[in-house]
Amino acid sequence: MQGLVIHAAGDLRVEEIATPVLGPGQLRVRVRCGGICGSDLHYYQHGGFGTVRVKEPMVLGHEVAGVIEAVGRDVAAQFNIGERIAISPSRPCGTCRFCQRGLHNHCLDMRYFGSAMRTPHVQGAFRQELVVEAWQAHRLDDDVSIEEGAMAEPLAVALHAVNRAGPLLGASVLVTGCGPIGAMAVIAARRAGARHIVATDLVAHALRKAAQVGADETINVADEPAALSKFAADKGQFDVLFEASGNAAALKGAFDVLGPRGVIVQLGLAGGEMTLPVNTIVAKEFDWRGTFRFHEEFGLAVQLINKGLVDLKPLISATLPFRDAGRAFALAADRSQAMKVLLDFE
Amino acid sequence: MQGLVIHAAGDLRVEEIATPVLGPGQLRVRVRCGGICGSDLHYYQHGGFGTVRVKEPMVLGHEVAGVIEAVGRDVAAQFNIGERIAISPSRPCGTCRFCQRGLHNHCLDMRYFGSAMRTPHVQGAFRQELVVEAWQAHRLDDDVSIEEGAMAEPLAVALHAVNRAGPLLGASVLVTGCGPIGAMAVIAARRAGARHIVATDLVAHALRKAAQVGADETINVADEPAALSKFAADKGQFDVLFEASGNAAALKGAFDVLGPRGVIVQLGLAGGEMTLPVNTIVAKEFDWRGTFRFHEEFGLAVQLINKGLVDLKPLISATLPFRDAGRAFALAADRSQAMKVLLDFE
Amino acid sequence: MQGLVIHAAGDLRVEEIATPVLGPGQLRVRVRCGGICGSDLHYYQHGGFGTVRVKEPMVLGHEVAGVIEAVGRDVAAQFNIGERIAISPSRPCGTCRFCQRGLHNHCLDMRYFGSAMRTPHVQGAFRQELVVEAWQAHRLDDDVSIEEGAMAEPLAVALHAVNRAGPLLGASVLVTGCGPIGAMAVIAARRAGARHIVATDLVAHALRKAAQVGADETINVADEPAALSKFAADKGQFDVLFEASGNAAALKGAFDVLGPRGVIVQLGLAGGEMTLPVNTIVAKEFDWRGTFRFHEEFGLAVQLINKGLVDLKPLISATLPFRDAGRAFALAADRSQAMKVLLDFE
Amino acid sequence: MQGLVIHAAGDLRVEEIATPVLGPGQLRVRVRCGGICGSDLHYYQHGGFGTVRVKEPMVLGHEVAGVIEAVGRDVAAQFNIGERIAISPSRPCGTCRFCQRGLHNHCLDMRYFGSAMRTPHVQGAFRQELVVEAWQAHRLDDDVSIEEGAMAEPLAVALHAVNRAGPLLGASVLVTGCGPIGAMAVIAARRAGARHIVATDLVAHALRKAAQVGADETINVADEPAALSKFAADKGQFDVLFEASGNAAALKGAFDVLGPRGVIVQLGLAGGEMTLPVNTIVAKEFDWRGTFRFHEEFGLAVQLINKGLVDLKPLISATLPFRDAGRAFALAADRSQAMKVLLDFE
Repeated sequence: MQGLVIHAAGDLRVEEIATPVLGPGQLRVRVRCGGICGSDLHYYQHGGFGTVRVKEPMVLGHEVAGVIEAVGRDVAAQFNIGERIAISPSRPCGTCRFCQRGLHNHCLDMRYFGSAMRTPHVQGAFRQELVVEAWQAHRLDDDVSIEEGAMAEPLAVALHAVNRAGPLLGASVLVTGCGPIGAMAVIAARRAGARHIVATDLVAHALRKAAQVGADETINVADEPAALSKFAADKGQFDVLFEASGNAAALKGAFDVLGPRGVIVQLGLAGGEMTLPVNTIVAKEFDWRGTFRFHEEFGLAVQLINKGLVDLKPLISATLPFRDAGRAFALAADRSQAMKVLLDFE
Repeated sequence: MQGLVIHAAGDLRVEEIATPVLGPGQLRVRVRCGGICGSDLHYYQHGGFGTVRVKEPMVLGHEVAGVIEAVGRDVAAQFNIGERIAISPSRPCGTCRFCQRGLHNHCLDMRYFGSAMRTPHVQGAFRQELVVEAWQAHRLDDDVSIEEGAMAEPLAVALHAVNRAGPLLGASVLVTGCGPIGAMAVIAARRAGARHIVATDLVAHALRKAAQVGADETINVADEPAALSKFAADKGQFDVLFEASGNAAALKGAFDVLGPRGVIVQLGLAGGEMTLPVNTIVAKEFDWRGTFRFHEEFGLAVQLINKGLVDLKPLISATLPFRDAGRAFALAADRSQAMKVLLDFE
Repeated sequence: MQGLVIHAAGDLRVEEIATPVLGPGQLRVRVRCGGICGSDLHYYQHGGFGTVRVKEPMVLGHEVAGVIEAVGRDVAAQFNIGERIAISPSRPCGTCRFCQRGLHNHCLDMRYFGSAMRTPHVQGAFRQELVVEAWQAHRLDDDVSIEEGAMAEPLAVALHAVNRAGPLLGASVLVTGCGPIGAMAVIAARRAGARHIVATDLVAHALRKAAQVGADETINVADEPAALSKFAADKGQFDVLFEASGNAAALKGAFDVLGPRGVIVQLGLAGGEMTLPVNTIVAKEFDWRGTFRFHEEFGLAVQLINKGLVDLKPLISATLPFRDAGRAFALAADRSQAMKVLLDFE
Repeated sequence: MQGLVIHAAGDLRVEEIATPVLGPGQLRVRVRCGGICGSDLHYYQHGGFGTVRVKEPMVLGHEVAGVIEAVGRDVAAQFNIGERIAISPSRPCGTCRFCQRGLHNHCLDMRYFGSAMRTPHVQGAFRQELVVEAWQAHRLDDDVSIEEGAMAEPLAVALHAVNRAGPLLGASVLVTGCGPIGAMAVIAARRAGARHIVATDLVAHALRKAAQVGADETINVADEPAALSKFAADKGQFDVLFEASGNAAALKGAFDVLGPRGVIVQLGLAGGEMTLPVNTIVAKEFDWRGTFRFHEEFGLAVQLINKGLVDLKPLISATLPFRDAGRAFALAADRSQAMKVLLDFE
């Protein structure tokens, strides 16, 4: 069985790896499709992000879907061979004080697929075969493609961001940064009842995609740096900002158009630090909330996909063989033509 | 009748000013006592703060209490001459879209006493006689001193900050910056049920006062810059931070000891911008909330003072005649010996 | 000019009434369309409901849309003759302690169109000409019919109910009672992100309509009284119940299928009292919330209609001339064939 | 070793029972003190409550404190023999869907000490020796009595009720029913910042105790059935009601004095059903919330007791030897002279 192993920045190899033994309560899965995430790109391009660095060979990947090929003891009644599933990469301990409080994404002993946050690193899911806990598996309906299944993970991230924002029914929403996560924030915010959604980016392709999945209005802030100012009347017309660019200029640029008590949900990870006008945050009583991964939103993501309540297909740019990882990663990094790039593990 | 008029940085004069005419629904008040606020100090020392600058002569002051000396038509049944009152300096319009939603502190047409935020400036309350709307007046009980009445305004600021934080019952709270507002945040947080309160500052006198009004533990971060680190276990032991220093170092220093989903209530106005590690805000899902003035908390402040549910007396450093304003402002600016300095307008 | 005046139970007359004088800040409107509400039916059939009784002749009606025929001073810049508008019937005082807190639907001096809650009664809007405050008027887009405009009021009621429920993204929702308000709760809950919606009623026509506007599943509890029990597993599968029947049996029947911490939003007004198993409310920690009219949701209702984010057309059963009020009210009362019946005031 | 075993209504025996074996992660405790709860009384007087009936012999009791006499493997580093602890009787499974969401009090497999809710019944803690999981143990400070330790459980119930109410800073609170739980709701509401607390009951002794622990005003509704009506102005003056009587008359009697959007926290378990005016709940948009046991509030209760932030001593009516259980239970049932009656297990 083969997998995609990162050794260092720029050094990504297709390597033979052993299939783990199937234990009780587990499933062995033939991975069929995997999405390249921004963090995968960072490992590949820069060997990591912030203080998180690749220190030993690590299988990449955490956005995967596949087919069950073996079912462990204890869960034989729940799953069948041949069923197609999306796989949650989140494996919290279930017992630490954060898991006790239902904050599983802050687990003190998290083992998230394909993450160098701890050493030894947690090996990832870009591989042909994978053993997972049964509770990581979420069934896909027959009319849902395996590619859509691989999109459940980033959708869960966006759903968690929307949950962090609070009720959105009737809200006026700004989304800065329309990569895959920003575009999914558009989808999730609309599903949650947003009334008007404006999306900004520097890249035309990203904005076209944002419009395609539901943004009412898009603004290319490279071309029209002052276009947002029409929303500045009466201390600002937006209720909620989803900041998915990680760019301080995007965030600061929104301070004039976000109204008092406006909520900012920060999705984008800045390279390092951001410099912000604190006085505006105080005077307008903004509420700036970080959002990190997800927990129960993974199951919800699969339910919404199964039920056709969201349509992620416009965000799939291409599906390439995993053995062409170099080409796939290059395409994923090219915002002028790609949103989500998927790998085929057949 | 005389008042304290700021003309420019360093140019504060006792001047004769006319008593306004008493209209219907209004009260004429003999001002007895007024507290010097940080913003009064900024007008005096620097001619303003941020983009807010003194552009014309303005009576300072917004923390005052006094005695009713005349009652206007329509409110004669509600108030009597001789009653002692605390006066809310907040005069929202009541009809704009923020007033409509109950967010009066974000009123589009606010006329807050002694504020250069708009031009013409709104004249302040450091004067011997003042005409106010009846709804600005809150009666003091007989056993409450007029000095305590003048403290209702900063207490209202602290109560609003506590309301912004959400429920505090059982919370572990950090307060960075123990000026009058930080110290009142200690009082308000304890009243709201905080379990453990740690206060930090660079000045011994401020920390002594914080301890006197209820902080369980005080840390002089000038002497012990690393002392907070004992709270860093398990991603951080504090639930809520009241940031009342306006100092980026204080805020960033708290990021290691504030747990996931920690709430930061930002009271302190930084000189300008702050540079912050955004990745931590994202990864720990902090919730950083600005807090600005107050609305209904003014009435609550007077109720808590009347009822003895808070004790503000330890924070009164001195009461000086308003004609000694220079000396009073100098004392107010000296954090090594003063918390709240009051002016006597008799 | 003529209007529909209720004199007593069963005594509804078309009468000549005077057109009010247009004042500053007001609009004179040619009413075009009005929906018959359950409360209008109660006045007609029973002379009132609960302690609210018709004690003097009163023009009925509060769900209306029309065309501006004159614009008062002060608002001439904002409105033009010929514009089509939906009219909010809610006229709170704006100054009482509830209006101050943004709870305008609890105004101490509310003057809601066509209501006998106070005496003298507040005259209603089922008339050919009406003078309203400009802030009651909400413009309809060109592609929105006047009939849809008349539906904004009941939609606002449903939107307020959804706001009372809290976030619904991904929620499993039960709606008991599928009259116009229950059916609009289905629409509003879906718009707010509900994942699965089950609707119950005793009448086939109502259930067909609920399905048509988005219920995933409908249950006729007259035919299948035990059908809900399939949702009882693990203490109950529903997160939220919108109780729009006012029937104690419907409410109690849901107690087994609503999970712990389930939220019940009570829309339906029971004839009088309900007898409930309090121990279940305690043991499952239900949260039973009344919902009453609306405030800012009226504007939101018009925005969602204008934008096509909701489709109310399937709920319009018939439009009859207002001079045929008897026939129209009889049809509105016949749940076997009618949802919303509209009156044409041309 | 002996314990108190209920066999049927009125049949409570001191019996010899075996000491369980100490396992890893567990503590063996010499029980020193136990409080008689209302549910213990119901088992004794009526053989149960509602559908919960004693079907087999069961050791009663769940409010206990004691001294560690043996420490199991794995937790030897955390606890020492001789330490005094309060013991949480709550043992959720930690893995069901409610535990996953942090709603441990709704665990699908709860094993709460001394409860006949499931069969076989869960044996209780009124016994001389008890083996508990280490995470059930909460250390008492040296200056806290073992009797106060036994009060941690009912305080946790009251703290959970207060958490269910939302923020109380400045709230006007009504408590109906001043048994031990009602009285502790007074204590917890004051600690959480309530401004004014009115308590009602039918029994003078209960009201004296409520006043002693902090109620600002008490009303004997047997003597003065109309006394609450002075709070009815402007749709009602109370913000929150803690209903701890389980009496429909008390609840309905509060409907006139609880303001719009008032929150009712239902602590009292009615004998069976309650008949309520639903129209008032709708029209005033009440929010009626059940509250059931607690989860993380047990640890908080011990922290507040240790820190002296609450004083429960006035509520201890008597401590009797457990062999005098009959006399102790009779006293506990006599509201004219007793609040909490404790058993001594030495």
